[in-house]
Amino acid sequence: MPLYRITVAYDGTHFEGWQFQARPASPGKNAPRTVQGVVEGALLRLAAGAPVRVTGAGRTDAGVHAWGQVASFDLPREMDVAALGSALNGLLPADIRVLSAAAAPPGWNARRSATSKLYRYELDLGPVRLPTRRHYAGYHRGALIPERVLEVAALYRGRQDFAALASAGSTVTTSVRTVFRSAARFEPDPLTGDPQGRLIYEVTADGFLRKMVRSMVGGLLSAGSGARTADDLARALKAGNRGLWPPPAEACGLTLVWVAYSPPPPLAPLA
Amino acid sequence: MPLYRITVAYDGTHFEGWQFQARPASPGKNAPRTVQGVVEGALLRLAAGAPVRVTGAGRTDAGVHAWGQVASFDLPREMDVAALGSALNGLLPADIRVLSAAAAPPGWNARRSATSKLYRYELDLGPVRLPTRRHYAGYHRGALIPERVLEVAALYRGRQDFAALASAGSTVTTSVRTVFRSAARFEPDPLTGDPQGRLIYEVTADGFLRKMVRSMVGGLLSAGSGARTADDLARALKAGNRGLWPPPAEACGLTLVWVAYSPPPPLAPLA
Repeated sequence: MPLYRITVAYDGTHFEGWQFQARPASPGKNAPRTVQGVVEGALLRLAAGAPVRVTGAGRTDAGVHAWGQVASFDLPREMDVAALGSALNGLLPADIRVLSAAAAPPGWNARRSATSKLYRYELDLGPVRLPTRRHYAGYHRGALIPERVLEVAALYRGRQDFAALASAGSTVTTSVRTVFRSAARFEPDPLTGDPQGRLIYEVTADGFLRKMVRSMVGGLLSAGSGARTADDLARALKAGNRGLWPPPAEACGLTLVWVAYSPPPPLAPLA
Repeated sequence: MPLYRITVAYDGTHFEGWQFQARPASPGKNAPRTVQGVVEGALLRLAAGAPVRVTGAGRTDAGVHAWGQVASFDLPREMDVAALGSALNGLLPADIRVLSAAAAPPGWNARRSATSKLYRYELDLGPVRLPTRRHYAGYHRGALIPERVLEVAALYRGRQDFAALASAGSTVTTSVRTVFRSAARFEPDPLTGDPQGRLIYEVTADGFLRKMVRSMVGGLLSAGSGARTADDLARALKAGNRGLWPPPAEACGLTLVWVAYSPPPPLAPLA
């Protein structure tokens, strides 16, 4: 069967995350609305009723957004890739958009073939949470100490065991990951011009544990607000003790921006 | 009765605009949800059942957002202004936030006392509409010619009759307004880095006709996409003929950013 890959953007606000969940949260309710489930529903119609299983590069949580999620799937028949992207956008709701579509080589898999992923977290600071940003940025009331935030961002770089940042009940075989880039910066508040109006954190790694980026931001926040020192966090990271790590930041500030493959696939954006 | 002023931010997505509408759109329905109506509802509770009428600086349309709307109202009793802001935020939904509150001098009026207003319009360009931006930016599929956009932005500057840009059925006594600043610029697409990923248009004037900013952006779009020339638009503006003017841009891209007063009021943001 021919294999395809698509790049997908979505607004995670009204999704219970990426991954398909068959079971309703309580009896009599519908199955949770997930990005994978909605994309598979659209492909089911496109494939004239043949069920299509979609693999996503990153299993984003409820409320997490994507600008560049990548997904792969088999179709029962060959399709023109431009037509595939347009047809999917015709079937998908406005909170999911296909940005590009391409044929993939045999054996290619959006998750296993990925070499790195870039996540971005936006955190608004200041006295009041701006309504237009409430679904697209985390929020911390008050300022952060920039040097401490940068110090903790530097802690995350390199190949190390991130067990302290994994969510409870994780079943992965190893919690060692390589962080290629971990960069925090401040942007001005668009209304007041306050130079520390927002914290933007971007992180690229060969893989992420569940809630790892949100736990990383939890660490930035904890040190930046003075609750912990960078040394405290360095020790907790080294000890691999989840109980010592600050809580993860809110989901809504997180966006899966980019997934890298080697070699990069020849992706034509939709015309 | 003591007079107060507040600065208010809101997400216009789920509001039928600023202005209170008593009548339901159809029999059996509730009255439309408006920002003024919701703020007055919160003040009614704060004033222990005494109805409070709120005057807003700008009557934003359905779907239009605000970072710095200003409103004034009388209260039946004196209130500490910090307590007023916090109490209102406790009663208001998350899509409206009070950013600051202050006492106002007798006779002061958020609408009549305003000397100028700054509106901002964001328009996303590119092949696909990004889901996370669909309620916060207008959208145009494809590129715009920057020189033409800037040429039309320059047309709007100065004191002139904007009758061509007024919405139908307007009942204002004069359509002459003074535009102090009219500035268009392009910002990169955050995902692809395309330097013309977004158009940002900011305009400051002593007042605006209904749908005037959206009509201004309609003009930028029309010239930028090549549908009209700047000369066409200059002639239509001079002739004051609404029928010759391109349609207004979508509401969701527009934000009321700032309202200026002279002298500027001593506004302490909420601690």
